[in-house]
Amino acid sequence: MRYMGLLQTYKQYLPINENTPMLTLHEGNTPLVRAENLSAELDLDIYFKYEGLNPTGSFKDRGMVMAVAKAIEEGSKTIMCASTGNTSAAAAAYAARAGLNCIVLIPNNNIALGKLAQSIIYGAKVIAIDGNFDRALEIVREITAKHPITLVNSVNPYRIEGQKTAAFEVSDQLGKAPDYLAIPVGNAGNITAYWKGFKEYHVMGKISSLPKMIGFEAEGAMAIVKGEPILNPETIATAIRIGNPASWDTAVAAAKESQGQINYVNDEEILHAYRTIASREGVFAEPASAASIAGVMKLKREGVFHGGETVVCVLTGNGLKDPNNAINAVTAGPIVVQDSEAAVMEAIRKLEGEG
Amino acid sequence: MRYMGLLQTYKQYLPINENTPMLTLHEGNTPLVRAENLSAELDLDIYFKYEGLNPTGSFKDRGMVMAVAKAIEEGSKTIMCASTGNTSAAAAAYAARAGLNCIVLIPNNNIALGKLAQSIIYGAKVIAIDGNFDRALEIVREITAKHPITLVNSVNPYRIEGQKTAAFEVSDQLGKAPDYLAIPVGNAGNITAYWKGFKEYHVMGKISSLPKMIGFEAEGAMAIVKGEPILNPETIATAIRIGNPASWDTAVAAAKESQGQINYVNDEEILHAYRTIASREGVFAEPASAASIAGVMKLKREGVFHGGETVVCVLTGNGLKDPNNAINAVTAGPIVVQDSEAAVMEAIRKLEGEG
Repeated sequence: MRYMGLLQTYKQYLPINENTPMLTLHEGNTPLVRAENLSAELDLDIYFKYEGLNPTGSFKDRGMVMAVAKAIEEGSKTIMCASTGNTSAAAAAYAARAGLNCIVLIPNNNIALGKLAQSIIYGAKVIAIDGNFDRALEIVREITAKHPITLVNSVNPYRIEGQKTAAFEVSDQLGKAPDYLAIPVGNAGNITAYWKGFKEYHVMGKISSLPKMIGFEAEGAMAIVKGEPILNPETIATAIRIGNPASWDTAVAAAKESQGQINYVNDEEILHAYRTIASREGVFAEPASAASIAGVMKLKREGVFHGGETVVCVLTGNGLKDPNNAINAVTAGPIVVQDSEAAVMEAIRKLEGEG
Repeated sequence: MRYMGLLQTYKQYLPINENTPMLTLHEGNTPLVRAENLSAELDLDIYFKYEGLNPTGSFKDRGMVMAVAKAIEEGSKTIMCASTGNTSAAAAAYAARAGLNCIVLIPNNNIALGKLAQSIIYGAKVIAIDGNFDRALEIVREITAKHPITLVNSVNPYRIEGQKTAAFEVSDQLGKAPDYLAIPVGNAGNITAYWKGFKEYHVMGKISSLPKMIGFEAEGAMAIVKGEPILNPETIATAIRIGNPASWDTAVAAAKESQGQINYVNDEEILHAYRTIASREGVFAEPASAASIAGVMKLKREGVFHGGETVVCVLTGNGLKDPNNAINAVTAGPIVVQDSEAAVMEAIRKLEGEG
């Protein structure tokens, strides 16, 4: 049977009525992959929720399909966001699918065309302003308040509604709620959405327990951990390089209500985890995604787990989104040898010797 | 219920016994997305089989999971291939998962580290030889014939076995075989595998008809269409830039037996299709993938279809594999304006005016 997308699959749990189009690029239905090697090593039952296999390569597709479907329902012809990354790619793809215009506003400093290429190929119109990201978001809010243009940044409440379906999927795939849900925290919308999803599924009787929510900020952007906004957030994990999370309060509430925590990991721990999940488990995720498993490794060292607990680590985006990080993370290029069987065999023996 | 991967799902149709490990990265189970806009425009019922959402971003994962599982079963500790692209990424990921060594042999000319980054991050050992690709493959064959190292290039027969599952999925998702299966043809292993899969499903009574197989080479690499190997194949669609297809005869047989055809498309048609599926349908695939839909557009112009036929176009790889092509395919960067609501609104009106 053909999977028909998130809106169709979780219709009864979403703000959907007879006028809501069943828009889909077959988002969701992403793998829950058991981390065989890390589970054994850390004495835990670890799974990756691999959101990088969504249509545009990140979890943002879940919220965006809902937001764009509601925009169509409301008669909107144009959607708009401020974003240089995963949000704009998702917005552009669903706008293309639905025949809407998509306007992406970005700051004019440090435009990396590579990061924007995905949005542009989907047909988004990109406008750069002489101002920073906060100013771009401000202008998007002003314009969408006055004109018949729909704002699809994370302040759009339908985004969280769509994103909460990831908690439904994890529960359906495991056949229960996990003991822990480990997740990177940037703007904090995703931890908010997962917690909302788990609570709703619990109320509906689909799961009999709730997970402890453990969220991890990057050390250079740990606003919630510090208890104050970070003016110039810095981390290699660009997707969570956010100094003043929009969903701050709901993230804190999720950690508190679930008896979990918001903690942090540094760039070294993130890069170690990033390389480890690729080279030990065969899963290639964005650096920001690795914050979840880096956090689990940290809590393991701190003695938080007893052993055997089920831990789902959310991997938010596809490693292919950021190939430069992969290139930088590898220590060396190929070794070069003569084109003879003997020379190649000698190189293989040497490499095998290195482990 | 959790999807458990190709080997588990299609066990009864694969060379699996009680000693074959159920290796998986949750490959397969990829979306069959209806091309809503192009179906209306071309008066066909068109679907994309979007193989870019496999774990390493291409259809190669289907064959590789089978080949690596059999390598483990046979006691191999090391796998080896000659490849600079999708094959090496898939080999490296499954080797990482299974704890095997993976050796990738490449020619030392024009090494683009970006294309190799994915394999390296999965932990493959890359060796470059002072010789061309054919020589690299020759050395791989010599070494794997003599040493306990498993060859996982497409001459490994288990590759085709794993790949044929895509035909099973298409049939299961549609509830029938399509009228046409459109597919890019490079090394010609994939058209061979699909045709094998459809025929097996037909014999088992799972489908009551067979599709016409329509395969498309790139004009600059159209060995089968010309009837002779191309010495220096050239096309923007690098994944099908192959001058002497390994599965030549079986590809010709698939087209003949199914009353289909092997045809060709030029780079302009490929790039047009590449941009069209992204900007009209919201699906971002590798340039080579677009050869399938470019070919359908060509046959439509040539009057091959009557109208209303069901056509499945295989999109073999994820567009994120090759971001540089996306950048080159976009005509211009963002327009830059002042950071004021008025300036941005003026820019939006202008962009909307352009369509």
